[in-house]
Parts: sequence; C-alpha cells; structure tokens
Amino acid sequence: MVSDYKEILSDSAKGMKRSAIRELLKLTQKPEIISFAGGLPAKESFPLEQLQEICAEVIATDGAAACQYGSTEGVPELLEILAQRYRDQGLSYVTKENITIITSSQQGLDTVGKIFLNRGDKYICELPSYLGALGAFNSYGGVGVGIPQDEQGMSAVELEKTLAEMKAKGEKPKFIYLIPDFQNPAGMTMPEARRIEILNIAKKYEIMVVEDSPYRELRFSGKPQRMLYDLDNGEGNVITLGTFSKIFMPGFRMGWVLAHPMVIDNFVKAKQSTDLCTSAFLQKITVKFFQKNYFDANVKKIVDMYRSKLEAMLGAFEKYMPEGVTWTRPEGGLFLFLTLPEGYDAEELFQIAIEKNVAFVLGTVFFVNGGGKNTMRINFSYMSEEMNIEGVKRLADAIKELYARKK
Amino acid sequence: MVSDYKEILSDSAKGMKRSAIRELLKLTQKPEIISFAGGLPAKESFPLEQLQEICAEVIATDGAAACQYGSTEGVPELLEILAQRYRDQGLSYVTKENITIITSSQQGLDTVGKIFLNRGDKYICELPSYLGALGAFNSYGGVGVGIPQDEQGMSAVELEKTLAEMKAKGEKPKFIYLIPDFQNPAGMTMPEARRIEILNIAKKYEIMVVEDSPYRELRFSGKPQRMLYDLDNGEGNVITLGTFSKIFMPGFRMGWVLAHPMVIDNFVKAKQSTDLCTSAFLQKITVKFFQKNYFDANVKKIVDMYRSKLEAMLGAFEKYMPEGVTWTRPEGGLFLFLTLPEGYDAEELFQIAIEKNVAFVLGTVFFVNGGGKNTMRINFSYMSEEMNIEGVKRLADAIKELYARKK
Repeated sequence: MVSDYKEILSDSAKGMKRSAIRELLKLTQKPEIISFAGGLPAKESFPLEQLQEICAEVIATDGAAACQYGSTEGVPELLEILAQRYRDQGLSYVTKENITIITSSQQGLDTVGKIFLNRGDKYICELPSYLGALGAFNSYGGVGVGIPQDEQGMSAVELEKTLAEMKAKGEKPKFIYLIPDFQNPAGMTMPEARRIEILNIAKKYEIMVVEDSPYRELRFSGKPQRMLYDLDNGEGNVITLGTFSKIFMPGFRMGWVLAHPMVIDNFVKAKQSTDLCTSAFLQKITVKFFQKNYFDANVKKIVDMYRSKLEAMLGAFEKYMPEGVTWTRPEGGLFLFLTLPEGYDAEELFQIAIEKNVAFVLGTVFFVNGGGKNTMRINFSYMSEEMNIEGVKRLADAIKELYARKK
Repeated sequence: MVSDYKEILSDSAKGMKRSAIRELLKLTQKPEIISFAGGLPAKESFPLEQLQEICAEVIATDGAAACQYGSTEGVPELLEILAQRYRDQGLSYVTKENITIITSSQQGLDTVGKIFLNRGDKYICELPSYLGALGAFNSYGGVGVGIPQDEQGMSAVELEKTLAEMKAKGEKPKFIYLIPDFQNPAGMTMPEARRIEILNIAKKYEIMVVEDSPYRELRFSGKPQRMLYDLDNGEGNVITLGTFSKIFMPGFRMGWVLAHPMVIDNFVKAKQSTDLCTSAFLQKITVKFFQKNYFDANVKKIVDMYRSKLEAMLGAFEKYMPEGVTWTRPEGGLFLFLTLPEGYDAEELFQIAIEKNVAFVLGTVFFVNGGGKNTMRINFSYMSEEMNIEGVKRLADAIKELYARKK
C-alpha cells in the first residue's frame, strides 16, 4: 500500500463518512430488534407473481434487447409512459424530451451535485432534510444552508430573508432542495400556497429548485397539492426527481428526472460517464407492468397497506406515549417525526431503546446546522402493524426511562 | 429558466461533452450501416433460456429479498463467489472484504475519479486509452498524462521518465490507469515482464495502479498473463475493476472492484451517495448462474464465438486492405486497432465510410494528447461473421478512395 494513501484521497473522499442510516441499519438487523430506522418498503408490497409472469414475457419477446446496452436517456417506451402520466395529470407540455431514466433517485441527487456544485458552492435545504441528498451534495463540496420549517414545510419568510442576506454579501446558492410531499424526515406536506411562494422567491432570485418527490404517489388522505414543476408550467426553473423504489421495487434501482431539455442534456452527459445507462432489462419489465395495468393496481395496494400501518401506529402513539412527546401526522409517505421535550437527547434515548430492542434514526443527522437533538425519524412502512404497535410500546417505555433518568 | 443557467453549472458539467462513441452509435444505428463503432457483445451471446429458468427460481425462492434494498457492498453470496474464483486462480489472500459490487465498471471508473481526484490532479494513462475512463476522470477535473505504447502496451521506459520529470517538478500523479488485457482500443496484451516493470515503477514512486480488466476472461489464444493485482500479492497497490458486461450481459449493469479493504471502504462510502446499492435482483440472478454452472459454460461459448469472428475479420483484412494499412492481432477482447499510413486522416475516412455504410470509432478520441489522427478502433464482437467480412470490404473500398483523393 502506498504510504500516503489517506493523503492522496480527494477532498470529496476525505469528507465522506459512512451513511449514518446505512450503518445504523446494520446495527438494527438483529432479529429481536424492531427497527423504525430504515426507509424500506414492506416486503408484502412486492408484486412477485406478476413479476414472474412479466419477466418470462420480456425474456421471451424482447430478451436480446433487454440484455444489451441501452441508450443513456432510457428505454423510449418508458420515457413515453412517464411523460403521458404527467400529461394525464394536466402537465400538457411534458414530452419524453423532459425525462431521463436514472439508476435510483439517489443517482439523481448525486448528478444534481455533479452538474451544479463546485467545492464551496452553497445550496439551500430544509431543516431537517434528507440525509442521502445532503451526503450527495456534500460529496461535491456543496455547503448546505438550512432554512427552518414550520408545519407547512420550508418557511418562505426565512428563505427570502436568507437569500436577501446572501445577495447582500454577493452570494448566490446554486439551488433550493425541497421534498414537498410527505417530507423526509419530517413527514409534512407543503400546501400549494407555500409552494407558489417558494417558487416565486426562487424565480425572483433566479435560483433553480430541485423537487425531490419519492413519495408523491403514496398519499393516504387529503388532497394532492400541485407539483412545483407543475406550478412552474414547465418553464425550466424546477428539476423533479422521481423513483420506482417506494411505489414498485427498490431492488430495481430505478428513478427518473423531469426537467427542461437543457437540464436533461446535462444529466445525460453526466450519466454517460457515471454508469452509461440504466438496466434495459429492468426498464423493460417496468414498461410491461404499466402496459398490463399492474402498476397502478399495485400502488393502490401499497397505499392501502401503509395507510393502515400508519393509523395503527398513530393509535399506539396516542395510547402509549408519555406527556411531552409530539409527532407529525403525515398524509402519506413512509415516515413520521417524533420530538422529545426540549432538553432531552435522542442519542441518549437511542441507547436505552436498543436495550429494549427498538431502533429509530436520530433526527439530528438530517439537520445541516447540527440541530434537532431531541428529534427522531420513525418509519412505519416496513414492519407489520403488530410490530409497529409493539415497537411504539417499547419506544414509549424507553422514553419513560429517559424521563426518569433526567429527574 | 434562470437566465444564467449555463454559468451556474459546475466546472465538471461545463467540461462535459456527450460521449463521442455514444453519439456515434446513434449515427450508426441505421439498419444499412455495418457498425464496427460500439463495444457491444453479440446478441447471440446472451443465455436467454437459462435466464428464463433462473429468473423464475429467484423470484419463487428469494423474491422479496431480491426486490428490496440490498447492502452497499453487494449480495454476500456474489462477493464470496468472486473471491473464491480469485482464490482458485492462485490469489489465495483474496476474501470478500477485498470485493465490492458496482453498477457497471463505468461506475467503478467514476468512483476512482471521485475518491482520488481533485480538480487539476494528474493521472497517468496509455496513449491511446479507454475513452469512458478518460471521460470519468476528466469529469472530476483530472488531467491525463499520456504514456506512449509499444507492442507490449504502456512503455515502462517512458513511464519512468515521465514520473522522474514530474517528481523533479514536485508533481505526483494520483494513479496509473491501465488496461493490461486486450487493451481498449489498441487490442494488445501486456506481457507479465512489462507488468512487473510497471508495478515496480509504481511502487518506487508510491503511486496506485488502476487495472481495468473488462475483457480478461475473453482470451481466444495465447497464455494468460498474471494480473497486476496478483503480481502485487494483494499488497494494496493495485485496484482492479471487473465487469459482467462482456462475459454475461451489459443489460445487468454490474461489475466489481477487487482492492485492499481500505480502498473498498472508500468505494463503499462513495457508493452510498451515488446509488446506495446495485440491484439485488440482478445480483441474485447472477449468483444462480454461477451456482448452476451456467456462467462459465456461457463464457466458453462467447470465447469460441468471438475467436471465430476475429479470425474471419483478420482474414478479410489480409484479403481486402490496401497497402500501408496496419492492424493489431489481439489474443482476446472485442477490438482491434487499425492504422492508416502517416499523414492520412481517419476523420476524413469516416465521411467516406459512412457513405459506403460502414462505421468505426476515430482513434483520436482515445488519445489524451490529441494524437492518433490516422487510427481507428474496430469492434468485431457485435456483427455476424458475414457482416464483419462485408464491413471490412466496404472499409477497404473507403480507404482506397481516401488514397485516391490524396494523390
């Protein structure tokens, strides 16, 4: 081994830590632990019988093309299906030139970093925000500027204030990163009025908006709020990332980007050197799921399943949680966010919780400003309803013990 | 669209061009064109019947895990299979801690760039070298320093000279990038003696070696030369990249890294923010191909097929090529390299060739120093033997026309 191995690493690699969540997941894979830590879909959500049928069909009818290299943009039929779905939602101006397939929306986040960020460049994110996005942006030397949330998501007032201050200093962030639907980790959904406010501020300061939208299709209640991309009327100020991981199968590692063709061109050029193309085999299987109308039926099944899991969990929170703990009541997605009374430390709680065989993610990992020490992210999609309830009981016990220690 | 869109792009994105090869491939997809331009496996090489059988088995017996997120390192069984294969080749010290799965070896190249290169850092490559690697390294601001090849690959004399000169200037490249087996694009294989020379120089100057090995298993004739990783006795100076794209299916987008555990750790950390994990579904299918002994039988079938294609093509070169044209006679891989007499321009030839419905890749794209203007890369794996012969005829006609124009 070269003696200066650690020194020859890039600044990017020197700054990389193993993902707190991924490492936690390993810790919590012991069978006796009820883990609320991951963001995994329920295994019952995977349409295995249909997958059997469709794999056989794709291999029989289109096998050679499925096994070959594909175009970097993606399988044309899949691009067209996604474009049509947006048109069906009223985004009449979307064509397949607005879409490209990516190998997971994590690749989309990585590519956003790659095409916009020089080392030291700033970007705007929510407090809290998705750790995987922050990790990707930071790997390109991006510096996150956090904007506090209220119950409607990113505060427009704080955003404008921050941008005005930055402008006065001659600074301009490269983009505003948002998860408007069922935010990860906080769980709330940004109402349309707030989306319009944020978009208008972005346009006023001429800043791109990155709309990360992994959960949009997983709405259990309430009314869908128009996408920021939609509110922008396709004028090119918004880049939207979608994924098949939560509404189909994470094992396929597939997502898509919806953006102005100029932005799509940058994504495609970047992808040529990052992985050339996404698996044509998996794309073609996905196309058939749409064509046979299996896709939406499966999404509906998932939504019903997760709604029921969330309701059971919220019921258990009401029943078991001690005084002083608060939590979000999301209208969809995979997560809710728990807050301990001010002054209590979720990291201390984590140790007690692990002893009681229940795990969660520390909220603080989602805060670029180091805040959120009394918060936790709780996943409700992966475990069964019964385990969710049992896990809440254990967590409530752990919190009571934490309270007792502090007295 | 923000008015300064092109200005807010990162230096990386500003420097990205669409891959010359990928764009050429589009040009040459007209059915009447015989294209020697890509690096595509023959579609007859894909084991579709076995894929049918194995997909059905994986979904039936391990479907839920296959559809779920997997670990960033890769499916443990696949890591163990790859480690065992290296041990079977005499690399007794290889364990699964030396291996991680990547989403195509292109992702491996991208990650090498990400973890080692700051903007302006230098790396060593061959003249010529694989365009996709240069593109990936350059996207991180890497600056390629080209070392000429002789008929044994990278010149050890020139390498030592260059490193000594750099050292005198206080410069040190981050790594030496090599394709020792059936080099892309030049086709030659580096003999063991040269590998040892290069490795000793690398160790003397304490520089990592990146051994790109996409074709190693595709040997048609001659004796396998020990891998640089093997010659290093696993001491950590060599990072080897492998891929399933040429020996199995590019549609799976799967490769692997063989390296010291410290290097593997950097790859894993980087991958957590680039795509989290490679498809567990495709990894599990691949595991079953090994377990049922289908994998090696298929590689043998591919080797026999490509050997026959290459022989037919070399025969056609002998028969049809006009005086002055020379070409490599590779012992394996997918490519041979054609050189026109000094002073002739392959780009001018390309225009004539396209009119005659035959295409190739301009050699010059593989030279970081802008050289190779009279060279071309010719793929022999994708087209049928008959088409390969017909294509060589057309190419020979085009060269004759080029000669006539120059008179």
